[in-house]
Amino acid sequence: MNILISNDDGIDSPGIFALATELKKIANVTVVAPESQQSAMGHALTINKPLRLHRFDRAGELFGYAVDGTPADCVKIALSHVLDVRPDLVVTGINHGRNTAVNILYSGTVSGATEGMLTGIPSIAVSHDSHSYDRDMTTAAKYARIIAAKLHASGLGKGRLLNVNVPDLPESHIKGIRTVRQGGSIWEDSFEKRVDPFGHDYYWFSGRYSHIDEDPYSDDQALKDGYVTITPLRFELTDTELMDNIQSFMDF
Amino acid sequence: MNILISNDDGIDSPGIFALATELKKIANVTVVAPESQQSAMGHALTINKPLRLHRFDRAGELFGYAVDGTPADCVKIALSHVLDVRPDLVVTGINHGRNTAVNILYSGTVSGATEGMLTGIPSIAVSHDSHSYDRDMTTAAKYARIIAAKLHASGLGKGRLLNVNVPDLPESHIKGIRTVRQGGSIWEDSFEKRVDPFGHDYYWFSGRYSHIDEDPYSDDQALKDGYVTITPLRFELTDTELMDNIQSFMDF
Repeated sequence: MNILISNDDGIDSPGIFALATELKKIANVTVVAPESQQSAMGHALTINKPLRLHRFDRAGELFGYAVDGTPADCVKIALSHVLDVRPDLVVTGINHGRNTAVNILYSGTVSGATEGMLTGIPSIAVSHDSHSYDRDMTTAAKYARIIAAKLHASGLGKGRLLNVNVPDLPESHIKGIRTVRQGGSIWEDSFEKRVDPFGHDYYWFSGRYSHIDEDPYSDDQALKDGYVTITPLRFELTDTELMDNIQSFMDF
Repeated sequence: MNILISNDDGIDSPGIFALATELKKIANVTVVAPESQQSAMGHALTINKPLRLHRFDRAGELFGYAVDGTPADCVKIALSHVLDVRPDLVVTGINHGRNTAVNILYSGTVSGATEGMLTGIPSIAVSHDSHSYDRDMTTAAKYARIIAAKLHASGLGKGRLLNVNVPDLPESHIKGIRTVRQGGSIWEDSFEKRVDPFGHDYYWFSGRYSHIDEDPYSDDQALKDGYVTITPLRFELTDTELMDNIQSFMDF
């Protein structure tokens, strides 16, 4: 099996190192990832400037290619220029921080996997429920390996994308894997207004995440309940219900 | 009626000027938009640096606030800090270039409107099917006004987002408004590899858009057929069909 690995925290993050180390047990892995932190980049592409690619070597333990672009750029350029063979899977992560509910829209981790899925390669985005770079990612990586092996064996093909979140718990405390829907939790937006040393105002995003969806089969709640969550995603965005009724509502 | 206007081409683009000029006929408008071009930014947020906001004045014809961030940032900061009253609508655009099919994922124009929708405000993303800054946007702006007025009058409330695309045709050649689904057309990705003056390689995205969905009720085809298209969007991304079957496929 050949696996392309990317992420949004940057090629030198502990999460991608843990993921690559574990997936090497079951596959040939190629790592193509952003050279720097790209969190909350959403599905951004770099089109107004060129991209550069350079070899990355983490003390002989992780080889790969660093790109001065977004996660979506990395997967696109990897499939077009880096890889000689089409990978069997694209796996992104392990993200430092959950990607659930509305956060999926902002997630570079998910957007990297989405690029894989859009070209027909089964893809997985993996996130760990802690923003700390010091947490042990071994358990999250192990679950990523199990799920990657099962997805590959399942023969589930084109257009498949699994969004996986792993609780920040010791392995023995994890209750299992639960398939859940994208939850309905939201951000309550705010910005802190501050004043710089020159007396000019600036604003820093400081929203508060509001866990309002307590369905045990939604992502945030299942994660809170101690499950590794899998949410299959698709990007067919048409609101078919409204589409069927829009003529009567809007009188065109 | 109060309307918040934003875009992704930047506050000085002809498209936002045409939109604001036309929507002033039916509403109080407030313009909060990126200070520079933000195309293909997807749903990116700025979280690792602060944002600044400054007054913008286009020769007395367009006042507004320019933000050194993404379209999603602009709508978030406008709702949190610029506006005293919650707007009745958020309208983004007019984008220079269509936002159809898979392009919706990469679109800053759609992401700005999505931020409005996520806070419960009915929102519209408007795009014009030409990348040229010299094309007349009057007709596209007029359709934006008609659709905005109808959406407001309809009472369609929370969670509503209309993605509107206008053909690059004289008004008399437009066949009307058609409600369509997000189409299935795709990009065939490629990158041009070039060499810089110092002998180093660089890569420039140069994908080719492949119009493969010819259903007259899909966005690209209806646009090609001469219709103004409306696609209601939602961001419930769970692949419910796969979710129902994943246990049997993957044997967890």
